[in-house]
Amino acid sequence: MTSPAERIAIIGMGLIGGSLGLALKAARGGKIEITGMDTNELSLVKARQSGAADIVTTDFKAGVINADIIFLCTPVLQVASLVNEIAPYIKKGAILTDTGSTKGYLIEQITAVLPEGVHYVPGHPMAGREKSGIEAADETLFCDKWYILTPDAASDAQAIDTVRRVIGWTGAKITVMEACQHDWCTALISHVPHIGAAALVNLLEHAHDQDSSIKLAGGGFRDTTRIASSNADMWADICITNSGPIADSLDKFSQLLTQVAAAVRQGDRTSIHTFFATAKKRRDELLRLEEAANGQPLTNGH
Amino acid sequence: MTSPAERIAIIGMGLIGGSLGLALKAARGGKIEITGMDTNELSLVKARQSGAADIVTTDFKAGVINADIIFLCTPVLQVASLVNEIAPYIKKGAILTDTGSTKGYLIEQITAVLPEGVHYVPGHPMAGREKSGIEAADETLFCDKWYILTPDAASDAQAIDTVRRVIGWTGAKITVMEACQHDWCTALISHVPHIGAAALVNLLEHAHDQDSSIKLAGGGFRDTTRIASSNADMWADICITNSGPIADSLDKFSQLLTQVAAAVRQGDRTSIHTFFATAKKRRDELLRLEEAANGQPLTNGH
Repeated sequence: MTSPAERIAIIGMGLIGGSLGLALKAARGGKIEITGMDTNELSLVKARQSGAADIVTTDFKAGVINADIIFLCTPVLQVASLVNEIAPYIKKGAILTDTGSTKGYLIEQITAVLPEGVHYVPGHPMAGREKSGIEAADETLFCDKWYILTPDAASDAQAIDTVRRVIGWTGAKITVMEACQHDWCTALISHVPHIGAAALVNLLEHAHDQDSSIKLAGGGFRDTTRIASSNADMWADICITNSGPIADSLDKFSQLLTQVAAAVRQGDRTSIHTFFATAKKRRDELLRLEEAANGQPLTNGH
Repeated sequence: MTSPAERIAIIGMGLIGGSLGLALKAARGGKIEITGMDTNELSLVKARQSGAADIVTTDFKAGVINADIIFLCTPVLQVASLVNEIAPYIKKGAILTDTGSTKGYLIEQITAVLPEGVHYVPGHPMAGREKSGIEAADETLFCDKWYILTPDAASDAQAIDTVRRVIGWTGAKITVMEACQHDWCTALISHVPHIGAAALVNLLEHAHDQDSSIKLAGGGFRDTTRIASSNADMWADICITNSGPIADSLDKFSQLLTQVAAAVRQGDRTSIHTFFATAKKRRDELLRLEEAANGQPLTNGH
């Protein structure tokens, strides 16, 4: 007996939506049917050609009508109005899940427009690249990366299980935490480092000797600031939708740097040494934890 | 007619001294004779075994007596007393060059104890790894990396040429700039990014939820903070010996972050977007400049 193909809709066929489609099709082939949607027709052509979707359409209403699971992979600030637009067309019992980088804001926005009988499971794949768009999509993007789900007490247990099962096909490591926890953690380990990298690059504008600084800025500088080449729109949206944790963590980061600057001015070698030694110890520990989690040694570098 | 082997002394057989020895021997073989010196006998055994030196000794005085060129590769804060100690044993006409990461401070200290008739050419190879010690030495460490020389008007032109020639054997790209220029540029593109990476790691101590933050801190965070695993002693010394440029640049960095935090709190998307778009544009430009300089495309990542 063959069960009918699971119908999955993906709205937003960019890097995340496209990679999701590729990963799911690679794992399940004909056992699932993917409808890929986007306002950009060229992205849809590429999604169809690459095999990231079986069917493509710019008509979101028609595209979601039969879907068992709908993945929202559009920019964060567009998600709420999108859900509002498709709400009447989603079938009862369907599951809606998003892939936004910030959760508290999105949950509030989506819950406010969620139709009755539709289950919402908030999610965030911690996977990304500097490049964006369907051209950069990759079926291994989620492989061995964290995929965080942030359901709350009201979330439907069976819907959570279904989302876990489907996401499991991408090879991601799934973990569950509260939305608030998620937003503070990602501010610290992703959003603030990103802003820091961008600030380092912008600091070059203040160089006494810009030409020489730019000439010498290779190697370590290139690695440290790698994430500064990411999409400006996406990052502006992240800042807007996770403002509290980001602003507070940025202030703490800035305070740490001011303290180091003061110690450097005073020639306080002990404080400076402690600062570096603590960081080294902590980072080496992180690498060990990762190695233990992955069961294989990580290189210290790239 | 065979000219006598050029005699090169390297004091400090750690990562830099060891890699220098390996690179020079790989390029020149028997045409040069390298005397490797260190206070650590085990490092000397390894230097000898790896071929980074032909002769090894813990007796710096005996080791420098016949040298045509002496490379000082010890930690920055030890260089001045070291030069003072070996000064009477350096032959007239010999060349002294150091590999310290900061130049203004070292030039002042070394010039004060430099014996008459000995030529000093300050240098700084912009090559490093997180690992230190002779075990991490690598004959390709300097290959295609900047090696900065910072002679002044009083420096001997022939001595500069000789140092250029010898360093050229390592495959490094040699460039000349003023010491002050060097110290400001490296503060911006190397020292401050390093301090920033260490501060990001230390920021984890302030996490609301340390366990989750640490668990999720892989990928981008690992890359961004890679340089935070470097040697704490070396970096404390760099801060002490390049305090002005580092403290000033750190303050500017901290100000940029505070400005972003304020824009984030105010929900000022335009300012935030400009901040990210400027950084992306500037970094993409840096990659293009590097590509042009290297004549081959660079990946955006690692």
